[in-house]
Amino acid sequence: MTVQDYIQSNRSRFIDEWASLIRIPSISCQPEHQPDMVRCAERWVELLLAAGCQQARVMPSDGNPFVYAEYRCANPNAKTVLVYAHYDVMPVEPLELWHSNPWEPSIRDGRLYARGADDDKGQAMIQVKAFEYMVQNGLMQCNVKFIFEGEEEIGSPSLEKFITVHKDLLQSDIILVSDTTMVDKDIPSITTGLRGLAYWQIEVTGPNRDLHSGHFGGAVKNPAIALCEMLAKLIDDKGHVTIPGFYDKVLPIPAEERRMIADIPFSEENYRQAIDVDALCGEEGYSTLERNSCRPSFDICGMWSGYTGEGSKTILPSKAYAKVSCRLVPNQDNEEIAALFVQYIKELAPAGVRVEVTPLHGGQGYVCPIDIPAYRAAEKGFEVAFGKRPLAARRGGSIPIISDFERVLGQKTILMGFGLEQNAIHSPNESMDLDVWEKGIVAVSEFYRHFA
Amino acid sequence: MTVQDYIQSNRSRFIDEWASLIRIPSISCQPEHQPDMVRCAERWVELLLAAGCQQARVMPSDGNPFVYAEYRCANPNAKTVLVYAHYDVMPVEPLELWHSNPWEPSIRDGRLYARGADDDKGQAMIQVKAFEYMVQNGLMQCNVKFIFEGEEEIGSPSLEKFITVHKDLLQSDIILVSDTTMVDKDIPSITTGLRGLAYWQIEVTGPNRDLHSGHFGGAVKNPAIALCEMLAKLIDDKGHVTIPGFYDKVLPIPAEERRMIADIPFSEENYRQAIDVDALCGEEGYSTLERNSCRPSFDICGMWSGYTGEGSKTILPSKAYAKVSCRLVPNQDNEEIAALFVQYIKELAPAGVRVEVTPLHGGQGYVCPIDIPAYRAAEKGFEVAFGKRPLAARRGGSIPIISDFERVLGQKTILMGFGLEQNAIHSPNESMDLDVWEKGIVAVSEFYRHFA
Repeated sequence: MTVQDYIQSNRSRFIDEWASLIRIPSISCQPEHQPDMVRCAERWVELLLAAGCQQARVMPSDGNPFVYAEYRCANPNAKTVLVYAHYDVMPVEPLELWHSNPWEPSIRDGRLYARGADDDKGQAMIQVKAFEYMVQNGLMQCNVKFIFEGEEEIGSPSLEKFITVHKDLLQSDIILVSDTTMVDKDIPSITTGLRGLAYWQIEVTGPNRDLHSGHFGGAVKNPAIALCEMLAKLIDDKGHVTIPGFYDKVLPIPAEERRMIADIPFSEENYRQAIDVDALCGEEGYSTLERNSCRPSFDICGMWSGYTGEGSKTILPSKAYAKVSCRLVPNQDNEEIAALFVQYIKELAPAGVRVEVTPLHGGQGYVCPIDIPAYRAAEKGFEVAFGKRPLAARRGGSIPIISDFERVLGQKTILMGFGLEQNAIHSPNESMDLDVWEKGIVAVSEFYRHFA
Repeated sequence: MTVQDYIQSNRSRFIDEWASLIRIPSISCQPEHQPDMVRCAERWVELLLAAGCQQARVMPSDGNPFVYAEYRCANPNAKTVLVYAHYDVMPVEPLELWHSNPWEPSIRDGRLYARGADDDKGQAMIQVKAFEYMVQNGLMQCNVKFIFEGEEEIGSPSLEKFITVHKDLLQSDIILVSDTTMVDKDIPSITTGLRGLAYWQIEVTGPNRDLHSGHFGGAVKNPAIALCEMLAKLIDDKGHVTIPGFYDKVLPIPAEERRMIADIPFSEENYRQAIDVDALCGEEGYSTLERNSCRPSFDICGMWSGYTGEGSKTILPSKAYAKVSCRLVPNQDNEEIAALFVQYIKELAPAGVRVEVTPLHGGQGYVCPIDIPAYRAAEKGFEVAFGKRPLAARRGGSIPIISDFERVLGQKTILMGFGLEQNAIHSPNESMDLDVWEKGIVAVSEFYRHFA
């Protein structure tokens, strides 16, 4: 049976199984969802056993549990593939912007809408269903191990220790991850580079309580203004991040890579219109695709101070907070950048306020070689599924664990990702293109054929 | 019976009546409290009748109702005093910082703690209890009218129309208001000037949805950064507000007034320590007391954008908001300043974002003469109650309606306020010093004696 026929015969069961995962709100950054993390891990164990694994189990860690599953094929010389995915998801706020319940899949115009439709429950299902097809049809010539974690969206705090302790169990010939995007639906691509991440919370404290802005305004430093002053200084008028030393280890983008990027079919006008802004902005001297993938960046992810309710409360707030992050490029070290950031922010703090910085998240960038057998097998898989040779593309997101895998397990990772920008991961109305999803299953099954 | 004896004989009833007002959460800026506004107005009607008014009623307006009450004395040539107060209060968030329930008075160390303990339920009680003493003991030689509103904390949107329509009903020889502070418990003072206010909400819109900060960061203008950049430009490094034309109508502080201010016993060190900051800041060339009362100022009262929950959501937000205000000085027009502000903010908006400004609140400053009989009577009242002649002091807060009274009713207002900075109005753990509160009743009753 061809993989396409297998998908069509089992399509409604695939969707039902996917839905059973989506209905579990496994939000890792909200402690009240802890029981959902365990439920979601247990559900994956059931699905992995049903797909054909000989064993699967929930394994404890210092944080949310891991899912581990294993398939051993008859051939004693078979290569081993380690498939990593994550079963946790992002929060869903602001809820009022969702057109359907984020915890109940809704299929409209060939897309499945739900939190986790893509990131990463939908992409993990591609891996598991491609595996199932190969095993159930007697085609699988590789050993396969699955390791699914429940803390990816909060920076994988337990992963490094877990893979260190279970290093032998996790030995493989290549690691396979579906958690990235393609350039476009008709432009298949394999992510060969990722940005690192450093994420902090800043707390600015002014007076010891909210003050009446009439009685104190003009005589006391306003911590919200102090925070704005500090954050406004972090990017200069040429779009450079101003943290001293920030660019010291950034490697220039090779001329050949810049040419490849320039050759990617990409409409800046479509990109601008899709997000509805009047202009695109960023670091002087770089194109949009370079800015969002090969160059480091600074963003405010959240910010709050004082009165945020209805109407006009006239206070001078005691506190102001921001959640900020830098996307880093390979060779920038997130811990070095964190140290530079903390020092700089404290230098920027004006008289009259105190500033605390708490690191929340960090990870290194990653570059994957394109001349290894596993990359070639993945390339072949995309070519069969999408009818075109995929581009090798650096992407702007971060999967900090990929560099942990390389360091701890000594293995490279192939990023066979089937997301699309319009899937709106982390946002309201996250979705997955079902046509791409099915092609993903084809591509991964072809990967196994060619890698074996 | 002396006023002191009357207070002691009736003290527990006074506190009970005060508590019955505090228990009604009359928060005017939160629409769900609308029924509480009506309940609070009705409770005041009961208390004003019980205190000795011959008539009292709730009167409808375009917004929350007004309370009107009247006492007419036997003497046909008696002067008429119009007492204004407000029965609405500020929100209580953040609730976790309160040491006791804000809606249930708690007496600790000679202070009564609750939302409205001072502003303005506590101060309005001073007025009503002084009135009650005079009437119940056959001493009142003035006609008295009371007008209490329920929208002071949201900028009194219905007041101007109400006093215009009811101009004849509200005719008086002087207006008396207890809603201001004294310099200190041992330094009685009468507020002779107030600052005006202009309050706006700014909405900055970047992309049409929250974006993944990895996929877009570096290529799209972050609206929270844009907001910080704009707000950081509103005060320069000498503490001046940078809105073009902002200072055009600001009159210099007269040399004599600067000398008077310099003579006020005021410890900058105590002021700094009380709010626990390492330095006081403000406009270059002015003292702290000048900065917070005689000079205009700019503050951020609230600010929010993106993800503000626990953990680290990696987004580039779609929206960023701020609630900002200027305190203005007499002769600055709040509508002119609003026009200048809106124009300047739009000029500051960088490419890649759209900016909207919504005016929320506005009012003019005020100056009161110190050579009129009513001022002299008030001065005498403070002197009897506190044992010292009160200072004439300009204060930094705003009671925009005072200038409306002057324009519409043609009458000056005497600000007999008994608040203290440490009462923490608008903040968690608002309180009233019960010793000062009793002296306030003495002072107001003495005002009636000397004004009659």
